[in-house]
Amino acid sequence: MANNHVDDRVVELTALIDAIPGDRVVIDPDRMANYRWDRANDPDAGLPLVVVRAESTQDVQAAMRFAAQHGISVVPRGAGSGLSGGSSAIDGCMVISTERMRGIEIDPLTRTAVVEPGLFNAEVKAAASEHGLWYPPDPSSFEFCSIGGNVATNAGGLCCVKYGVTTDYVLGLTVVLADGTAVDLGGPRLKDVAGLSLTKLFIGSEGTLGIITKIVLRLIPAQRTPSTLVATFASLDDATNTVLDITRTMRPSMLEFMDKTSINAVEDVTKMGLDRTAEAMLVIQSDEPEAYAAHEIAAIQAICEKRNAAEVYSTDDPETGEAFVTARRIAIPAVEQKGSLLLEDVGVPLPELGALVRGIESIAQNRDVVIAVIAHAGDGNTHPLIVFDPTDTDQAARAQVAYGEVMDLAMALGGTITGEHGVGRLKKAWLNDYLGADVMALNHKVKQALDPQGILNPGSVF
Amino acid sequence: MANNHVDDRVVELTALIDAIPGDRVVIDPDRMANYRWDRANDPDAGLPLVVVRAESTQDVQAAMRFAAQHGISVVPRGAGSGLSGGSSAIDGCMVISTERMRGIEIDPLTRTAVVEPGLFNAEVKAAASEHGLWYPPDPSSFEFCSIGGNVATNAGGLCCVKYGVTTDYVLGLTVVLADGTAVDLGGPRLKDVAGLSLTKLFIGSEGTLGIITKIVLRLIPAQRTPSTLVATFASLDDATNTVLDITRTMRPSMLEFMDKTSINAVEDVTKMGLDRTAEAMLVIQSDEPEAYAAHEIAAIQAICEKRNAAEVYSTDDPETGEAFVTARRIAIPAVEQKGSLLLEDVGVPLPELGALVRGIESIAQNRDVVIAVIAHAGDGNTHPLIVFDPTDTDQAARAQVAYGEVMDLAMALGGTITGEHGVGRLKKAWLNDYLGADVMALNHKVKQALDPQGILNPGSVF
Repeated sequence: MANNHVDDRVVELTALIDAIPGDRVVIDPDRMANYRWDRANDPDAGLPLVVVRAESTQDVQAAMRFAAQHGISVVPRGAGSGLSGGSSAIDGCMVISTERMRGIEIDPLTRTAVVEPGLFNAEVKAAASEHGLWYPPDPSSFEFCSIGGNVATNAGGLCCVKYGVTTDYVLGLTVVLADGTAVDLGGPRLKDVAGLSLTKLFIGSEGTLGIITKIVLRLIPAQRTPSTLVATFASLDDATNTVLDITRTMRPSMLEFMDKTSINAVEDVTKMGLDRTAEAMLVIQSDEPEAYAAHEIAAIQAICEKRNAAEVYSTDDPETGEAFVTARRIAIPAVEQKGSLLLEDVGVPLPELGALVRGIESIAQNRDVVIAVIAHAGDGNTHPLIVFDPTDTDQAARAQVAYGEVMDLAMALGGTITGEHGVGRLKKAWLNDYLGADVMALNHKVKQALDPQGILNPGSVF
Repeated sequence: MANNHVDDRVVELTALIDAIPGDRVVIDPDRMANYRWDRANDPDAGLPLVVVRAESTQDVQAAMRFAAQHGISVVPRGAGSGLSGGSSAIDGCMVISTERMRGIEIDPLTRTAVVEPGLFNAEVKAAASEHGLWYPPDPSSFEFCSIGGNVATNAGGLCCVKYGVTTDYVLGLTVVLADGTAVDLGGPRLKDVAGLSLTKLFIGSEGTLGIITKIVLRLIPAQRTPSTLVATFASLDDATNTVLDITRTMRPSMLEFMDKTSINAVEDVTKMGLDRTAEAMLVIQSDEPEAYAAHEIAAIQAICEKRNAAEVYSTDDPETGEAFVTARRIAIPAVEQKGSLLLEDVGVPLPELGALVRGIESIAQNRDVVIAVIAHAGDGNTHPLIVFDPTDTDQAARAQVAYGEVMDLAMALGGTITGEHGVGRLKKAWLNDYLGADVMALNHKVKQALDPQGILNPGSVF
């Protein structure tokens, strides 16, 4: 592995190692290899100069000051589960990993948690649960994505259709800025409008404005046990119309969609008896109080039947319900068994959901690739999974073309190029088309003001 | 009225009047007097050079371009109901009023509203309600505050304890920037993380970064008819402990507090039989489905009784319940009958609510002024109302001292100087103490990047 550029700077790194002693600074190329890729598997990922496994805000400050002094690009990294390449390393960069920053303190009286960024989302949920509390946002990757990454990308998930996304639960942040200054923004106050909304600005900034080292989260009382309904449809239009009929009058706590390709991929793995001929399946939950959940599920069942559902099955047994949710959650790994994936994340206004899925089918046909579609249907947020054989260079190239065409299609339908994964490096080429020159210029003005050297995650978003 | 500075610039204004014809441009000093003050009644409010009553985004752009060209300060203005002086005029400024921008379009399919900023909050609610939909945020001034002002201050209200504040309902904005460029940020997509969170940055920016000319709001299905519980307490500590006992396990849709002074002021006006001897009264609502609301109200009643409530009264009759909510809503006008008001807006972490109210009592005694306290108790957000006789200059001065001491107290308790009204001109002097130098510098960097001439609402916030 070529690492001449590391040797060139070995003297400089001594000062960094002095500032952050122990095994926190990694310069061994083999060990640094673990920090090159995130789940986007960007083939263009570079070789870091150094990896800092920070254990505190002070470590991040020391690393950031060193980077600023030497003009070294910094790639912040949580659990490396990102799907848009936002934490792919670049050549000669400093990776600042927050994997060791795993503290959490829960205050049940204020229903808040003070969390370090390296903790997994599932660990935050579990800690809250010990106090009868709940942190709602639930990316499908919740068992292995970090809460810091969730904040950096303003991550969503399955319950967001009723409970909102990450930004709705962040009350405060500690952020290390480009020059190494640490600032506390917001805090454990439920309402606070003093000064600009800077907490919100850093949420979803994908490491381009600063590095998040502490998060104050708002928690809510534990979710009630949900009831679950699963419906399959011979017609896609019936399924998407069902979604619209539900959301205009109700707030289910989950409203998920799988297309035929996803259903079959999951059935291949689970053998749970899913209807392989269905064009679409919806997995819906209500977490209303008991009697009312039954009422809501019955109303949803009536809509499904009116919209010609092939099969409708509902249960208030949590384990049976969870089995269907698991079927939806494992759709990505199930489809992944068919080949390599390009994971899309486009969203459209709800009435365009059917047109988006139909358009994706056309793109798959035209480009001769398989595209499975799963969706947080209640939010209009879809995850088309483009399957390709990486050893078939022609097919891999066609998959790349399809990846862009899906974004173009979403934009044409009034939608976004990314609903919850972030722009990262993979979607950057489409951002200007999506935002337009004036909004892009506004983004650059803010970036320039906060990171004039341009050392924070260069190549991601901007 | 002295208006020499208007005559000096009359030639320049001709170009503005040409660009925005009709009666949209006002230069008559008597008519401009209506645009000098907001509800903060800032005695230092200045004399505008010109008032532009914009009817469209294009009008705001033309006005903003003119202001930028001539270096004229711009004070954006909605309904003029602000309580922190954020839309007080300054000498020689251009007031851009959005009072005539009153369009609204509701799309029940996407549960979104596209709203112009001049519409009152109550009008947005009413329009949504025609489609069985609900726009939750409900400042006490909802009948006469503008939705644009709500966005500019990230306004809260009574239902926010369960349903969140303005920012939680804004999906997109059209903003006219300091140079007259109009940008569309966000839009009718429920999830969108493409680029920086600029929509959120403009929310709560109090007209210092741009002028909001269109708002895309997320709506939710109509609220269920709430049940209401009213409890009075001989002991303040029992009341604040009741708040904590409730919020750690439940999410009431309203959890309001009134102290003895407020209770008596309201009783003076309404003669509804409130307990004048009580130290505190709580007004609490549950909007859960019928049977469960009864369950929740019963649980709240049990907490109140355990905490030695003097009287507890509950009802599921909406009109009777609304009478108690009205009692809470009219507390400000009721207290206003005792004298002029300085309206505070400090918030603390919930466990400090009791200490805050006790501390305010001490300040009132020390400064020999009356301070009534009402609070969105579930959010820890209080509105101490400092009463003074404006003709008694010594008392007025002591009221001003108390106003600052209340903020100092809130900060000492880990709280904020403003929970939902904004910093405006009245609280600006405390912002640096609250945020600290580093965060203040970060605010300035963003302000400088977006408004390098410093013409957007100078003297407010910054």
